[in-house]
Amino acid sequence: MKYVEVCFSPALYKDYENREAIVVVTDILRASSAIVTAFMNGVQRLIPVGTLEEAMAYKEKGYMVAAERDGIVRDFADFGNSPYNFSKERVNGKEIVYSTTNGTHAIHLASSGHEVLIGAYLNISSLADYIVAQDRDLLILCAGWKNKFNLEDSLFAGALAELVLKHDTFTTICDAANGAMDLYGLAKDQMTQYIEKVAQRHRLKKNGLDDVIGYCHENDLTRIIPVFNGESITAINN
Amino acid sequence: MKYVEVCFSPALYKDYENREAIVVVTDILRASSAIVTAFMNGVQRLIPVGTLEEAMAYKEKGYMVAAERDGIVRDFADFGNSPYNFSKERVNGKEIVYSTTNGTHAIHLASSGHEVLIGAYLNISSLADYIVAQDRDLLILCAGWKNKFNLEDSLFAGALAELVLKHDTFTTICDAANGAMDLYGLAKDQMTQYIEKVAQRHRLKKNGLDDVIGYCHENDLTRIIPVFNGESITAINN
Repeated sequence: MKYVEVCFSPALYKDYENREAIVVVTDILRASSAIVTAFMNGVQRLIPVGTLEEAMAYKEKGYMVAAERDGIVRDFADFGNSPYNFSKERVNGKEIVYSTTNGTHAIHLASSGHEVLIGAYLNISSLADYIVAQDRDLLILCAGWKNKFNLEDSLFAGALAELVLKHDTFTTICDAANGAMDLYGLAKDQMTQYIEKVAQRHRLKKNGLDDVIGYCHENDLTRIIPVFNGESITAINN
Repeated sequence: MKYVEVCFSPALYKDYENREAIVVVTDILRASSAIVTAFMNGVQRLIPVGTLEEAMAYKEKGYMVAAERDGIVRDFADFGNSPYNFSKERVNGKEIVYSTTNGTHAIHLASSGHEVLIGAYLNISSLADYIVAQDRDLLILCAGWKNKFNLEDSLFAGALAELVLKHDTFTTICDAANGAMDLYGLAKDQMTQYIEKVAQRHRLKKNGLDDVIGYCHENDLTRIIPVFNGESITAINN
């Protein structure tokens, strides 16, 4: 049997770490939804960097840079963290450096796993199919909000865990996975209303950035799975 | 307004730390339920120690010692972590040193807060009344399992948050508090069945220690609130 676990915060990652597992990193509002969108729109390669200093250094070398903190695009950057920023006209065929508040840190952390995938509702069925075909343990890492638990990533973790656990070669004894699936079960038929209570929704709204919330909860717009090799993210066409 | 927050793991405590808050530490299966029981049965003072070495040093000085790891009582100790161990005959009027896998570490961590209380279903209404009367922020710290999220502590956090938030001087924008309340809402009318899926239940059962699960989910057997002053735990008779 293969095991499904969910880690609610990058600060808990070392307690869940599993070098044999496929690690799916998720940051639904908005980094992982933006990354999947970038590959839908033909980006060639994304380089996730943890610090703004690194992002700036790349910018000086001539790279196109997407960088935000707390939802706000940084002055030196070409654009920020909205999936809508990663349009075909802008990203097709390009290499882009990307730095966000929570998501890019989580991606680097996850690289101790066997393989690091970027997950969002936009590619959830493709992800589940790929994971089941690999027949490996699955660890879902929620980017959270500054190390705190967040609901939107946890709901996605529940949704993905539920899809994978439909296959009887997978099981779980992880309380976080069970809790996430129960929360997703509560929310799924009324996602728009449920997401009203999410703290990040209010942060985005305050900055006029909440236009993407519906889009970030759409299922299966693509089969593409972004994969991180420890240095950059490219696409698996599943 | 005063805020309610929930921290799902000691490893996240520094991200939720609030020196002005009352911190309620909970470890439902079984440390916080055992501590409340000890005070119901007249213990005078409990000294929580983090390491087994400290517990052993107290034993050599002649103290009565309760100490377990992974549910199993340690050889040198007088008894372990079951609430049933803290009977009136054994603990009335005594000072006892206490060390557990998760609970005692969480209690020490919480001492950066304004006041540290020990919470369980056994004293939940008294706790809520006391917190509301103090009119301070509330942070509920779940002891978890070796830094991982656990369901039984999270459900209790949801139950306590719900009681406190009935008072309109309290509010929350904490995703963990909202998630915990939703999980408690799912579980509360079928707690015995829900708790079946909890990982700790299986750990306890494996070691024949699951006889206390029903007891640890009984509400309001006492008004006593154990309070930690940074060195030892005594009782508030609320």
